[in-house]
Amino acid sequence: MRLVMVGFGVVGRSFVRLLIKRREELLGLYGLKPRLVAVVDRRGAALCEKGLDLESVLKCKEERGSVCESENGREGMDALEAMELVDADVLIDVTPTNLRDAEPSLTYIRRAIRLGMNVITTNKGPLALFMPTLLDLARLNGVVLKFSGTVGGGTPILNFAKKCLCGDRITGIRGILNGTTNYILSRMEEGMEFGEALREAQELGYAEADPSMDVDGLDSAAKLVILANWILGKRATLEDVEVKGIRGIGLEDFEEARRDGSTIKLLCTADKGLRVMPEYVKRGSVLDVKGSLNAVTFISETAGEETVVGKGAGGMETATAILRDLVDIRMGILGDRE
Amino acid sequence: MRLVMVGFGVVGRSFVRLLIKRREELLGLYGLKPRLVAVVDRRGAALCEKGLDLESVLKCKEERGSVCESENGREGMDALEAMELVDADVLIDVTPTNLRDAEPSLTYIRRAIRLGMNVITTNKGPLALFMPTLLDLARLNGVVLKFSGTVGGGTPILNFAKKCLCGDRITGIRGILNGTTNYILSRMEEGMEFGEALREAQELGYAEADPSMDVDGLDSAAKLVILANWILGKRATLEDVEVKGIRGIGLEDFEEARRDGSTIKLLCTADKGLRVMPEYVKRGSVLDVKGSLNAVTFISETAGEETVVGKGAGGMETATAILRDLVDIRMGILGDRE
Repeated sequence: MRLVMVGFGVVGRSFVRLLIKRREELLGLYGLKPRLVAVVDRRGAALCEKGLDLESVLKCKEERGSVCESENGREGMDALEAMELVDADVLIDVTPTNLRDAEPSLTYIRRAIRLGMNVITTNKGPLALFMPTLLDLARLNGVVLKFSGTVGGGTPILNFAKKCLCGDRITGIRGILNGTTNYILSRMEEGMEFGEALREAQELGYAEADPSMDVDGLDSAAKLVILANWILGKRATLEDVEVKGIRGIGLEDFEEARRDGSTIKLLCTADKGLRVMPEYVKRGSVLDVKGSLNAVTFISETAGEETVVGKGAGGMETATAILRDLVDIRMGILGDRE
Repeated sequence: MRLVMVGFGVVGRSFVRLLIKRREELLGLYGLKPRLVAVVDRRGAALCEKGLDLESVLKCKEERGSVCESENGREGMDALEAMELVDADVLIDVTPTNLRDAEPSLTYIRRAIRLGMNVITTNKGPLALFMPTLLDLARLNGVVLKFSGTVGGGTPILNFAKKCLCGDRITGIRGILNGTTNYILSRMEEGMEFGEALREAQELGYAEADPSMDVDGLDSAAKLVILANWILGKRATLEDVEVKGIRGIGLEDFEEARRDGSTIKLLCTADKGLRVMPEYVKRGSVLDVKGSLNAVTFISETAGEETVVGKGAGGMETATAILRDLVDIRMGILGDRE
């Protein structure tokens, strides 16, 4: 399978390392022989019709700052040009999330779909803003759009609901989808002030590029949109979500929660509507997870409430989600038939 | 799809109710038109080549104690005879678990496989004692053996690991697989004596037919065997598990655990070996779930630790697991290729 990767940050490089590590297993178990025919970063691209040498692409990026410095490098070449030049089966989009207009990822994804390529993205922007139409576009073009890594990092929250709860009807979703705010709230529960907890989360590398994405609830809202479209069949976008972040929560609020036997969590809820807001959660209950964990409960009609808990982010974890999507594409499972 | 059901207790009747309720949806979503051509209970069978009327089979069982009293009834007919008489695609085995010799379920399953039928079972006995050979037998005969309902009731613990963590390597499993003992231990943590907590669990209907199955860890061990075979590829049976139950745990043990910031849970662990025993679990950690919940953590190589939490039993919940297996068979997904 021929891959083009756009973006070559922590997640992209982890994915390439995973391809190296799992090479034999992927071939043996799934008959999958991935060939990376192009990688594009901010400064340019590296192309090779027969497949780039993975070790040397990694080495070039790490030592010289851009893949365009390699022997197959093309300085200044962007993703659109690269996709036109190589004949690839799958676009892997690991560009950073932009929740204002989803660019440039949106343009790349649309172009790839129109070129007949399947797409795997870890970018929440295009999905949060245009998911219903992007899924339609993929269906129309007979390709698959996969996005396991956008929600839960390596924790297969989307696939859990799609693949494991079939034969049942999911009527609602409730959960914690942002590890940074959960880390901050967990520290506040222990008595730390908001500002100090935020600084600590940033030092630990939990925060997204822009901390307001986490703290003001936008990252959570984007993930909730993806869940609501994919699992509940809603045609929703970011503007359909009522959003309230965790700024303004003080230690006195935690005191009050404690008297109720509760703590405070930034909960994402999908039932009749979609909302993200700080809510009371009973201490010791399933969604009372600590630190940077994510946890999502699916409320189903006959199997009761099922919860998945795991780390919600991380380079290697998200790379694992991309690899799962690739295996799924290889196994011929169409996105909308799972 | 033509079904034979053996056993017609709470789970079996819940399944038939689910078939009635979901009739249109199953046809629309999966092209699945299940026809129940035989039901067998302790006193006899009811057969109908064109498919039994589901409502009247339920009514007959509830009002007259056995399906053999219906107009299609055959008093004294057993499952082997019924399977020979009707030409069915799937055996649904909901007979009670027997961990001594797995009979009569073992004989039914073997016969069904030899007759070319797929099998869905909720009975832990045959799997705990003979899983490796039964899976071989099914493979040899080109049929599928499914058993989602044996672990976790309606919580898709087995499918989570198989379907959602592919592309990663699961190296260990750790969890709580028995709701009754978890209920008892949760009550003891609150200060109730063992005997009283056990009585309460029995009154609430949580206990299995024989409470020692739960309390002595056998039910947990049987489920651990199923997980180890299916997820870790071990060829293990019940005698490979080191088992210690929760009898003999006193309130003083909980006192000591509390001083360590921990509580006590009956943990099932699969790493190099297989064991079931009471262990300390840190308070507030992911496996510190209360009441009759089940929780299982899968330790994977690159995606980190992923946990599924849900109710581990219940008639309608387990019936949902059977329906999921049936949908999977219908979708042509072979058990060993998922």
